[in-house]
Amino acid sequence: MNVGGRHYRTIWPSGDGCVRVIDQSRLPHEFVTVDLHTLEDATRAIRTMVVRGAPLIGATAAYAVALAMREDTSDAQLERAGRELRATRPTAHNLAWALEHMRAALLEAPRAERVATAFRAVAELCELDVARCRAIGEHGLTLIRAAQAARGQRPVNVLTHCNAGWLACVDWGTALAPVYLAHEAGIPVHVWVDETRPRNQGAALTAFELGAHGVPHTVIADNLGGHLMQRGRVDLVIVGSDRTTAAGDVCNKVGTYLKALAAYDNGVPCYAALPSSTIDWSLEGGADIPIEERSPDELTHITGRSASGALATVRVVPEGSPALNLAFDVTPARLVTGLITERGVCAASAAGLRALYPERSDGDAAVRRAPASLQAR
Amino acid sequence: MNVGGRHYRTIWPSGDGCVRVIDQSRLPHEFVTVDLHTLEDATRAIRTMVVRGAPLIGATAAYAVALAMREDTSDAQLERAGRELRATRPTAHNLAWALEHMRAALLEAPRAERVATAFRAVAELCELDVARCRAIGEHGLTLIRAAQAARGQRPVNVLTHCNAGWLACVDWGTALAPVYLAHEAGIPVHVWVDETRPRNQGAALTAFELGAHGVPHTVIADNLGGHLMQRGRVDLVIVGSDRTTAAGDVCNKVGTYLKALAAYDNGVPCYAALPSSTIDWSLEGGADIPIEERSPDELTHITGRSASGALATVRVVPEGSPALNLAFDVTPARLVTGLITERGVCAASAAGLRALYPERSDGDAAVRRAPASLQAR
Repeated sequence: MNVGGRHYRTIWPSGDGCVRVIDQSRLPHEFVTVDLHTLEDATRAIRTMVVRGAPLIGATAAYAVALAMREDTSDAQLERAGRELRATRPTAHNLAWALEHMRAALLEAPRAERVATAFRAVAELCELDVARCRAIGEHGLTLIRAAQAARGQRPVNVLTHCNAGWLACVDWGTALAPVYLAHEAGIPVHVWVDETRPRNQGAALTAFELGAHGVPHTVIADNLGGHLMQRGRVDLVIVGSDRTTAAGDVCNKVGTYLKALAAYDNGVPCYAALPSSTIDWSLEGGADIPIEERSPDELTHITGRSASGALATVRVVPEGSPALNLAFDVTPARLVTGLITERGVCAASAAGLRALYPERSDGDAAVRRAPASLQAR
Repeated sequence: MNVGGRHYRTIWPSGDGCVRVIDQSRLPHEFVTVDLHTLEDATRAIRTMVVRGAPLIGATAAYAVALAMREDTSDAQLERAGRELRATRPTAHNLAWALEHMRAALLEAPRAERVATAFRAVAELCELDVARCRAIGEHGLTLIRAAQAARGQRPVNVLTHCNAGWLACVDWGTALAPVYLAHEAGIPVHVWVDETRPRNQGAALTAFELGAHGVPHTVIADNLGGHLMQRGRVDLVIVGSDRTTAAGDVCNKVGTYLKALAAYDNGVPCYAALPSSTIDWSLEGGADIPIEERSPDELTHITGRSASGALATVRVVPEGSPALNLAFDVTPARLVTGLITERGVCAASAAGLRALYPERSDGDAAVRRAPASLQAR
């Protein structure tokens, strides 16, 4: 999408065999790109959240494999790259999917062709991500159109949590793709942007990208969404998903569950938008998804721009007070109105997903039943 | 409670006819007191949240009336003080209650005795607040004891939102009074402290006061509480209340509703702890409670301590992105397990409250029925 009137993707080949990404850890204060030259560069970029968002993590991991091949085209190197990349972010499922995509492409290629094959496979994967996000946008657009038809000239108010916009993908976004398409179609749309503590992906990234593209929005505390729903000020909740189970449970940025509860309590439709690459067909219950624990510093300290214009980091929690920083939670399928995928909108259920992805039906035998579903009570 | 091993209240007469308070806008980074000399000083202290918390707002407003009497003992001055103080914070009900307490004491006093009468009435009000909070603590302690009996040696995990500790009152606190008494009784107790955006009253005040008193606690993002409840890591939710309706709806810091939804969904008991002075017997439904809108700067900027030790304010939301800052929400009584009052624990319902406060039953005729209850659906 656009920044300063110019079209960008989040990741692209830099021309000298390296990879260029937007440094998202410096947004919204500075818009700068950074080049990744090696597997280690890319691994660090994922771990430190220079790049983040399930689809973009997948794309970056795929590029990381290509960079690894530039150093050494052996099978051992391919295994090492997969191992190191899988360890960066345990929750996002696209990472595993992208690594599998690369592995399948490379294992059958002769070593002399592996570098070229890898970059070709990454390019395919990125185009696939863009096409899927665009398709998610088209399917989600019908939901926004329907909401508008019921509301006349009043803007459709969409609440989103975290950043599942184009910055989280290669382009378009998942949750925000329908919003961009609605905006381009002239449908009045306004986004309530959850700040999304502790890393502020909403205030820092979603607000930035919507503002840069000219989409009306308002930043709110994560605490406010429930009240806005009680007062009828939210028409649709659309979030992304870092991992979706075969039964439709949605693992997404921590706090998504709270918004889904509020939407359910107030009769507000709540959708998760996701490419099928985020679906973990091997998992039924969400309770088995590993939840990433990140540094408490992300909660105890905040970086922003000071009055002098310089970036500064300040401590907001008293010295001596411990903090716990778990990055995701699981929203049970019963609270999710539907899943917006590249193939269409379906119920958040095993049956709903099977209807859209019938080729996965024979994979049912492989589904691990969670010993006790998270929401069995 | 204790700071640096010394016992403090949040507000006390300074000895020269003035009033001294802890400047809570500078916590947790600096522990300093400030003297209030005039009605204007006190009004500003409430509006800028040098003092905050429903009971402490009431106590400060009462002191403000006494300071106003030092300037002019006329009925007109008494009316002016009431008018200006009522305009400071529209949601908290203790403010109106404290002003009524002062007005009743002063209107019958001859003008020559009004200064002395006012300071006597404030002292009574403060002692009443301390006694009520202590009683709330005793009643809430039985809930913590019961939770511990079911859990053996594992600490009882209490989740709280915002600050309803001693810093929100004259002493002891409301939601935290049971925690302090449990800690003093040797019951292992641990508090999950919601950060409480946008003003961070949890990270700044609750963490500070628990740390200063030596109570184990962990700061978490407002987004995390739901996940912790899903995973069985919360035994009790206890929050305060800025205004409680006659039907048991609880208006408290924004985000409380989301935690109550999660508690309900996971079978975790959720209590509001409140002195009866926060009960608005004239209101049945929570939809009629005015919700204070505060400056968006509280969301777009954050103040903390920089590495150099100096306090610094940084901007965290992009320039040009608007923000909305509503400070409270209403948790419908159906989500509240019970109300912990100075007279005991009751159901969050009209019947529950009437059983504890039978003298209010004849006030039923005055109850304004909300035109459409917030949760009528």
